[in-house]
Amino acid sequence: MSAGRRLAELSGPAAAAALGPGSVVVLPTGAVEHHGPHLPLLTDQIMADRVAAEAVDRAAAAGVDAWVLPTLAYTKSDEHAWAPGTMWLRAETFLQTVVDLGRSVAAAGAERLVFLNGHGGNVAPLGVALREVRRLTGLRTFLVPALVAAPPPDGEGLDELGLGIHGGAAETSMLLHLRPDLVDLSTAERWVPEHLAASELIGFHGKPVTFGWLSDDFGPAGVLGDPTQATAAYGARLYEASVALAVAALTEIAAFHPLGPGHTVAGGAGVAGPVEVR
Amino acid sequence: MSAGRRLAELSGPAAAAALGPGSVVVLPTGAVEHHGPHLPLLTDQIMADRVAAEAVDRAAAAGVDAWVLPTLAYTKSDEHAWAPGTMWLRAETFLQTVVDLGRSVAAAGAERLVFLNGHGGNVAPLGVALREVRRLTGLRTFLVPALVAAPPPDGEGLDELGLGIHGGAAETSMLLHLRPDLVDLSTAERWVPEHLAASELIGFHGKPVTFGWLSDDFGPAGVLGDPTQATAAYGARLYEASVALAVAALTEIAAFHPLGPGHTVAGGAGVAGPVEVR
Amino acid sequence: MSAGRRLAELSGPAAAAALGPGSVVVLPTGAVEHHGPHLPLLTDQIMADRVAAEAVDRAAAAGVDAWVLPTLAYTKSDEHAWAPGTMWLRAETFLQTVVDLGRSVAAAGAERLVFLNGHGGNVAPLGVALREVRRLTGLRTFLVPALVAAPPPDGEGLDELGLGIHGGAAETSMLLHLRPDLVDLSTAERWVPEHLAASELIGFHGKPVTFGWLSDDFGPAGVLGDPTQATAAYGARLYEASVALAVAALTEIAAFHPLGPGHTVAGGAGVAGPVEVR
Amino acid sequence: MSAGRRLAELSGPAAAAALGPGSVVVLPTGAVEHHGPHLPLLTDQIMADRVAAEAVDRAAAAGVDAWVLPTLAYTKSDEHAWAPGTMWLRAETFLQTVVDLGRSVAAAGAERLVFLNGHGGNVAPLGVALREVRRLTGLRTFLVPALVAAPPPDGEGLDELGLGIHGGAAETSMLLHLRPDLVDLSTAERWVPEHLAASELIGFHGKPVTFGWLSDDFGPAGVLGDPTQATAAYGARLYEASVALAVAALTEIAAFHPLGPGHTVAGGAGVAGPVEVR
Amino acid sequence: MSAGRRLAELSGPAAAAALGPGSVVVLPTGAVEHHGPHLPLLTDQIMADRVAAEAVDRAAAAGVDAWVLPTLAYTKSDEHAWAPGTMWLRAETFLQTVVDLGRSVAAAGAERLVFLNGHGGNVAPLGVALREVRRLTGLRTFLVPALVAAPPPDGEGLDELGLGIHGGAAETSMLLHLRPDLVDLSTAERWVPEHLAASELIGFHGKPVTFGWLSDDFGPAGVLGDPTQATAAYGARLYEASVALAVAALTEIAAFHPLGPGHTVAGGAGVAGPVEVR
Amino acid sequence: MSAGRRLAELSGPAAAAALGPGSVVVLPTGAVEHHGPHLPLLTDQIMADRVAAEAVDRAAAAGVDAWVLPTLAYTKSDEHAWAPGTMWLRAETFLQTVVDLGRSVAAAGAERLVFLNGHGGNVAPLGVALREVRRLTGLRTFLVPALVAAPPPDGEGLDELGLGIHGGAAETSMLLHLRPDLVDLSTAERWVPEHLAASELIGFHGKPVTFGWLSDDFGPAGVLGDPTQATAAYGARLYEASVALAVAALTEIAAFHPLGPGHTVAGGAGVAGPVEVR
Repeated sequence: MSAGRRLAELSGPAAAAALGPGSVVVLPTGAVEHHGPHLPLLTDQIMADRVAAEAVDRAAAAGVDAWVLPTLAYTKSDEHAWAPGTMWLRAETFLQTVVDLGRSVAAAGAERLVFLNGHGGNVAPLGVALREVRRLTGLRTFLVPALVAAPPPDGEGLDELGLGIHGGAAETSMLLHLRPDLVDLSTAERWVPEHLAASELIGFHGKPVTFGWLSDDFGPAGVLGDPTQATAAYGARLYEASVALAVAALTEIAAFHPLGPGHTVAGGAGVAGPVEVR
Repeated sequence: MSAGRRLAELSGPAAAAALGPGSVVVLPTGAVEHHGPHLPLLTDQIMADRVAAEAVDRAAAAGVDAWVLPTLAYTKSDEHAWAPGTMWLRAETFLQTVVDLGRSVAAAGAERLVFLNGHGGNVAPLGVALREVRRLTGLRTFLVPALVAAPPPDGEGLDELGLGIHGGAAETSMLLHLRPDLVDLSTAERWVPEHLAASELIGFHGKPVTFGWLSDDFGPAGVLGDPTQATAAYGARLYEASVALAVAALTEIAAFHPLGPGHTVAGGAGVAGPVEVR
Repeated sequence: MSAGRRLAELSGPAAAAALGPGSVVVLPTGAVEHHGPHLPLLTDQIMADRVAAEAVDRAAAAGVDAWVLPTLAYTKSDEHAWAPGTMWLRAETFLQTVVDLGRSVAAAGAERLVFLNGHGGNVAPLGVALREVRRLTGLRTFLVPALVAAPPPDGEGLDELGLGIHGGAAETSMLLHLRPDLVDLSTAERWVPEHLAASELIGFHGKPVTFGWLSDDFGPAGVLGDPTQATAAYGARLYEASVALAVAALTEIAAFHPLGPGHTVAGGAGVAGPVEVR
Repeated sequence: MSAGRRLAELSGPAAAAALGPGSVVVLPTGAVEHHGPHLPLLTDQIMADRVAAEAVDRAAAAGVDAWVLPTLAYTKSDEHAWAPGTMWLRAETFLQTVVDLGRSVAAAGAERLVFLNGHGGNVAPLGVALREVRRLTGLRTFLVPALVAAPPPDGEGLDELGLGIHGGAAETSMLLHLRPDLVDLSTAERWVPEHLAASELIGFHGKPVTFGWLSDDFGPAGVLGDPTQATAAYGARLYEASVALAVAALTEIAAFHPLGPGHTVAGGAGVAGPVEVR
Repeated sequence: MSAGRRLAELSGPAAAAALGPGSVVVLPTGAVEHHGPHLPLLTDQIMADRVAAEAVDRAAAAGVDAWVLPTLAYTKSDEHAWAPGTMWLRAETFLQTVVDLGRSVAAAGAERLVFLNGHGGNVAPLGVALREVRRLTGLRTFLVPALVAAPPPDGEGLDELGLGIHGGAAETSMLLHLRPDLVDLSTAERWVPEHLAASELIGFHGKPVTFGWLSDDFGPAGVLGDPTQATAAYGARLYEASVALAVAALTEIAAFHPLGPGHTVAGGAGVAGPVEVR
Repeated sequence: MSAGRRLAELSGPAAAAALGPGSVVVLPTGAVEHHGPHLPLLTDQIMADRVAAEAVDRAAAAGVDAWVLPTLAYTKSDEHAWAPGTMWLRAETFLQTVVDLGRSVAAAGAERLVFLNGHGGNVAPLGVALREVRRLTGLRTFLVPALVAAPPPDGEGLDELGLGIHGGAAETSMLLHLRPDLVDLSTAERWVPEHLAASELIGFHGKPVTFGWLSDDFGPAGVLGDPTQATAAYGARLYEASVALAVAALTEIAAFHPLGPGHTVAGGAGVAGPVEVR
C-alpha cells in the first residue's frame, strides 16, 4: 500500500487534515471462525484485509481519496459458535461496535464509510448498521463484498451448485493464493447440501425464501462447498476480480449522491448532522 | 380464513394441542409508516396481513399444518422517522421483540417459525433475527416476502427502472386491490431516482454494493417509484402471485430439513434445545 | 368506526395535517396469552380493540379530536409464560416499545397519548411508561382501562369475591358479547382463591399489600374467577359501561391540564420538549 | 431494634444460618428527592427506614422471622428530575438494581422478599419488579407502603381533597414526628391542585384514569398537598398507623400462600427455582 | 457531623443554594458482602460511612465546601456472589447507577464529585465511572479510599505479607474500633495465601500482573488476611489515618485543576457541559 | 513468530486440538487514538501487537503453551474522543466485547486468558473484565502491561516527573524502535503538567487519589509527557524490558493457581464452569 492510505498510521492531526467531505473511509470486516479443517480461522479476515488494502491503494492511485482502517477482527460469527476456535460477538455487541466506530468516523470529518466485508454472517447485521449509522451520524454508508464470483481459470464450471458459501472452492482458492502456508488441502472434503439446490424456493440467496441456519445444521464439518476443487490459479482470478470490484465501488461511492450526480447537499431532513461525540 | 388457523383465536390449551413438530407458525410483520400522500400508513401491514391469512388458509386446505399469528404492527421503520405518522421501533427494540416472540413460539411446541414480511426495512433486521432465534430457541426460522413481482396485466413493462420499492406501482396497485378506499391516486406522483438505475454497482438489490439510506435522501416525497402507473388489476395479479408464492413457501417449509428430505433430527450441535422460558 | 379516525389508515401527510395540540391519540394495548380453556388467547386484545374503536368513534362524533392506532398485540404477559400459547415480551422490551411509540406520536405533532389497556399485567409497566414517555417526549400520557365493572343484568351480585381478574365472569361475558364464536363455556370452571378474600391485607387491588404472582401460583388452570357465571347479556352491559367510561375519559383528557382548565402551557420545567427523532 | 434483626449486621455465615423458608426479608426503599422547601431530600428514606426498622422489630418480637436490609437510598425519582438535589435512577437502572438484589436474597436462602416503600414514584416500577423477581428467582414478593393514612388527631378532616401526595400534610407531619430538626414549616405553602379533585375520572388513585406527570406540572413548587396543616401529633398517629400496618403485613406475609393456608409447595410451574448466581 | 453537611438532609432549594462550583460532593460507596464469620456483611459500608462523615465534617470546619451524600449501600460484590448474604449488583447495574447519580449531582450545580470507597471490588468499576461521569456530565471526579494503611500501634509489623485485603487485620481492627458489637473474634482465622507473596509478578497490587479472582478461589473461608492480629487500638490508628487522608484529599480536590492552581476554566474541548437531565 | 503460535492461523479443529488446560491464550489490546502530532493513531496497537507476538514466541520456545490471538484494535479510548481520528468504543461496548471473546476462549478449551494491554485507558475496564470473565466463564484471567518502565540508556533520568503517560518519551521511543517511519519528531512538544507532580495526593498512579480526566483537560495537545526526549535506543531498551516482563508473566501464569503451586482444581464454588455457548 502506498504510504499514507492506512488512516491509523497517521497522527490524529494528520488524519483530521486528511479527511474531508470527499474522503471515503474503508473499514474491512473479517472474522475469526471455523472454516473446516483445511482453512485457518482467519480466512475471512485475510481476504478482507488484503482486498481492502489493495483496493484502497489502487483507488487512491486513480484519484479517489480513499483510506483504510484497521480490520475489525472479531465480528458476528454465531453460526459457528458450536465450533471451538470461533471467536464471536453477539448481534448486540457487533451492532454497538459498528455504531461506535461510525460515530468516530463522522467526528473525524469524513462523510462516507464503507464496510468491506469478508464474512457472510455479517451481511445482515451490517445491513442494519448501514441505516443505523446513517441515521445517527449523518454518514453515507456502503457495504462492499470482499469476495466476488469469477469464472474458474480453465473455463469449466465449478460443481458446487452455487452452494459453496463457507470454506468451499472460492474461499479455499483465495487462501491458496494469498496464504498457501495456512491451507491444508489434504483435509479438504466436499460438503455440498445438494438437496438445497433442488429446493425451489428456500436457499441462501437468489431464492425468495431465506432461513436461519447454523453451520452444523448441514453436517458435522461446518463447511458448505467443495474445497477439493480449489486452486491457487482460481484464487488469483478471484482476488483480481474482488479487488477490481472494490476499486470500482470506491470510485463510484466517492461520487455517489442519492439525488444524482452534481448534488452536494449532505443529507435529507431525516439526518440531524453528526451526533455529539459522547 | 378457515376457522381455527388463527392461532390466537384458540385457547391456550387448544393451541398447545394443535402445535407440534410439523406445525408452521406464521408471524406477519407489517409497518406503520409514511408511504407518500397517496397511500395509508398501514400499507405494509395490510399486505402482510391479507397475504398471510389467505396463504395460511390455502396451505392448510392443502394439508400443511400452518397457523397465523396476529400481525406485528409496529416494526423497524426508521428510514421514515423524519415523516410524521411513522411509528417506528429502534433496531434494538425490534430485535428484542422478535426474539421474545420466538421464545414464546418455541415454548408452545412448534419447531418452525415464518416471518411473512410486508416491509422492506425489516429484511436486514429479520435476517439477523432468523439466526438469533434459531440459535437461542432451536426453532427453524424462515423469511418469506409478502409482496413479490408479477408482470403487469397488459403485458407492458412498468417504467420504474426496478426502483419502485416504496409507495410505487406495486404497493399502490396492491392497495387498490385490497383497500381502494384508502388510496388517493390524485396525489400520486412519480419519484424515480433514475440516476440510480444508471449506477453500475450501487443499488437497492441485485447490485453488489448496497447503501444506507433514509427515504428523504431521494427527495421530499419519501416515495420511490411511480404510483401513477398503479391499477387495481395489476394489484390483483400481484396479490395472487404473492399468495401463491407464500403458499408454496409454507408447503416447502413444512418439509424442509437442512440435511435433506427424510431427516428428522431437530438440530445440530449448535442448538441446545429450546431455552427455558424466562 | 367513522372513516378517518383510524390514524394509520391516513397517509403520512394526512396524519400530520390531522394531528395538533388538541388531538388525543389512543394506543390500545392487548395481549396474546392463556386465559384458560374457555377463552381465546386474544381475549384482552379483542376487548381493547373493540372498546377503543367504538369509544374513539363516539368521542369523535361528540367533538373530541380522537384517533386510534393499531392495537399493540404483544405485551407483557410473563405471568402466563408457563402456559403454551402465551406470546410475551420481557419488561424491558415492552417498555422500550412503548417509549419508541411515544416518541413517534410526539414527532407526529400530537400532545396527548392514551393507553387504552385490556391486559391487567400491563398496568404496572404502563405506569412506568406514563412517566417515562412524559419526561422523554413531553407528551401528556394517560392510562384508561378497556374493561370496567358493571352490575350484572339481573341485579344479583356475582359470586367471585372480587377475585375474578383473569378469565372470570367479566372477561368471559365480554367475549360472549363480542366474539361468542371463540368462547367454549363447556370447559369453563370456577377457580376462585377464596382464601385470598379472607386475607386482611394482601390482595390484587383495593388492599394495601400487593404481591408478585404468576398465574399458576393459584392452581394449574391459570384462571382467576368464575367463568361459569358469564352471560352474553352481562357482557353487553360491561361493554357498554367500558365504552362509556372510555368516551368520558377521552373527553376529559382532551381538556385536561394539570394546572386546571384554561391553561395552555405545554409543560413544566422538567420537560424539554419533544426529543429529536433518533 | 432488637439486636440481630438487621440482616447486614450479621456475618455471611450467620445470615445463611438465620434465613430459611419461613424468613421474611424486608428491603426498605426510600428516595433522595425534592420535597419542597420545608422538607429534606431524605423525607421518603427516613420514613421507610424508621417504619421498617420498628415494624421488623415488633414483628420479630411477635414471632415472625423478619429481617431488615439496609435501605435502598437512591431510587426512581424522575418526576423530580427538574429539581436540583434530586438524585434519581432511570427506570432501567432501578429495575436492574431490584432484580439483582432479589437474586441475592434468593441465593441467601430466603423465600419471601418485601419492599417496604416510602416513595410513591417507586410503586409502578416495584409493581413490575414484584413479578420480575418472582419469575426470575422463585421468591415470593410483596409491596407494603411505608406511610398509610390515619385520621388527624383532632377529629377534623384534612383540607387537601385527597391530593396531598408529595410534601403535604401527611409527609410533613411524619417528619415533624421523626426528624423535626429537618423541617422548616416557615417555608411551607399550600399547593393543592383543586381542579383535580373536581376531575371526574382522572386522578392519582382511586379514580379510573391515571396519568403521567412530573412534579412541576402542577406549579413551580414541586409540592402536592398542604404542609401548613401538618403537626407532630398527626405525625405520631401516622407513624403508629404505618408501623401497625407493616407489622400486620409482615405477619400475614409470613403465613401467606397463594393456594391458601397450609400449603407449602414453593411455586407453580412457572417458577424454575432460584436462578444460578451469575 | 456538623449540621448541614449531610446534603440530603437539606431541602431541594437549600441544596441548590448550597452547591456551587467550589463545592465538593462526596458519595461514600460501601458494600453488603461476606467478610468471613467474624465480620458483619456491612463492614465496608460502616467504614465508608464513618470515614466520609467525619472527613467531610473536619474538611468543612477547615473551610472546604464539602458535602456528603447517603452511602451507596449495594455495589459490585460479585467476587463474593458464592457466599450467602452477599447482596451484589452486576457491573452494568453498578455503572449505570453511578452514572445516573453523577448526572444528578451535575444537575444540582456542583462541579466536583468524590467517590469515597470502602470496597476493593469497586475500584475497577469506579475507575471506569470516573471517566464516564467526567465525559458525560462535565463533573470533575475523584476516587478516595476509605481505608488506608497505618503502622500497627506497637511498632511491630503485621504478619500478613501484604495480602490482608479482605476481612484481615486492617478491616477487622477498624470494625473493632467502630462497631465492636458486630465483631466475633472467636471465629476469626488466618487465611493468608502465602504462596502469592512469593509470586514474582502476579499479585493484588504493586505487582505488574493482576488477575481475576473470586474470593473462594483462595479457600472456603472467603477471607484474605489474618484477622487474629486485629485490635481495637490498631483500628483507632487506621481510622485516624483514613480520616486524615480523606480530609487532606478533600482539601486538595477543592483546589484541584488539571491545568494547575489558579485555573478556573471548567473543562477541555472534550466536555460538552452537563448533559440535559433525562 | 514461530509458525503455529498465532491461534487464528490454525484451523478450528487444529485450534481445538492445540488448546488444553495448560494453554495460555493471549489477547493483545491496542487502541486507535490520538497520540499527538508526532505519533500514529496506531501507537498502542503496534506496541501490544509486537510485544505480544515476540513474548508468545519466546515463551513457547521456553516450553510455555502460549498462543496469541489477533489484536483487539478498537477499544475504550473515550478520553481522546474529542480528538479527530480517535476510534473509540463506549465502556459498555468494550466490556461486552471482552466478555463475548472470553466466552469464546472458554468454549475452545483453554483455561487461562491474558489481556496484554497497550492502552492505559483500558486498565480500569479490563480490571472489571478480569472478574466478569472469570465469574461468567470459569477462565482464569490476567492483565499484563505491554509497556513497562526501563532506565534510559545513558543512565540519565528522564525529566518527565513520572507524568509521561501518553505520547511521552516512553511511547515515542518505543515507536522510534518499532516503526520509525510513523514518527515525526519535528512536531513533538513537551507537555508535562508539572503542577501534578507537586500534588501531594492526586495523581495518575502511585498516589492514593485518582481522578477522571480527558486528555484535553491538560491542554490542547492531548499529550502527557515529553516526546522530545525520546530515542530509538531507549525504545529498544523499553521493548526488551517489556518483552522480558511479558515472557516472565506468561511463564508464571502458566503455573499459577490461587491455592498455590501443585493445585489443579479448576475453580472455587463461585464458578459454575464454562457457560453454555449462547
